[in-house]
Amino acid sequence: MRVMVGGTFDPLHDGHRRLIARSFALAGKGGEVTIGLTTDDFAGRKTHPVRPFPERKAALEEFIRESGFSPHFTVEPLVDRFGSALETDFDALVVSEETLPPAIEINRIRREKGMKKVDIHQISCVLAKDGRWISSTRILRGEIDEHGNLLPLAGEPDDR
Amino acid sequence: MRVMVGGTFDPLHDGHRRLIARSFALAGKGGEVTIGLTTDDFAGRKTHPVRPFPERKAALEEFIRESGFSPHFTVEPLVDRFGSALETDFDALVVSEETLPPAIEINRIRREKGMKKVDIHQISCVLAKDGRWISSTRILRGEIDEHGNLLPLAGEPDDR
Repeated sequence: MRVMVGGTFDPLHDGHRRLIARSFALAGKGGEVTIGLTTDDFAGRKTHPVRPFPERKAALEEFIRESGFSPHFTVEPLVDRFGSALETDFDALVVSEETLPPAIEINRIRREKGMKKVDIHQISCVLAKDGRWISSTRILRGEIDEHGNLLPLAGEPDDR
Repeated sequence: MRVMVGGTFDPLHDGHRRLIARSFALAGKGGEVTIGLTTDDFAGRKTHPVRPFPERKAALEEFIRESGFSPHFTVEPLVDRFGSALETDFDALVVSEETLPPAIEINRIRREKGMKKVDIHQISCVLAKDGRWISSTRILRGEIDEHGNLLPLAGEPDDR
């Protein structure tokens, strides 16, 4: 199957790893995964700092290589919410809980353009140890690490 | 993976077959599929007549047997939009374009109850030869057959 998935992936955390792993599982042997990675310009709209595209791409490729996923993959620059999803022929879109609305929009536009709709796979977020989502914002705030472990808050008294 | 899917499945058409086939593919070897089949009472709210539960169940089981899917499966009665999806531990819900809203509702309620959210896989509808969805209503109206082939309208002059 030909699967598309997108994101900024910085820092790469367990929620991202789950999204990527499921995309490869869904594509299956002989399948193809296209990963849309936001450009620095597009990602720059986020409220937190983002590492440059080549660094984020390298981290993503390292995770994929270590995981030994078999389907062929391509990392392409994502300049807007849709990327090449409105132009290309593929089968399924993998999204997180946050990115379901653009996926529904992609299908609406594809339909208007006379293209086939694609399946949408919404992968539920991975929870941190405190039961809330793992997110890049929380990691950058120093609340949790990339696996969702809680970190002692900076400046908080250590009550050992 | 443990997958849940639900429906009335009457008459069983290519859209349903795709939904079921993808549920089994997603469950994978060693996985489990639970198919919630609407009870006659619950399905009775539809605007078109529905065959009795045992007949619908038999048609579903025949399709599964013929397809040779390997994961273990159970057909359970579905008495409302949620079935056992609010009670049981499973991994993914497979829905059609029409049944995405109850799936999102299921995750909301699961979260409120302190249960883990599940992945939601929305399988796009199969289109009939005229480019519109295959649906039970259209089949029962005599517009299309279960594979989406257009049927000559009853009472229409045959222009051979």
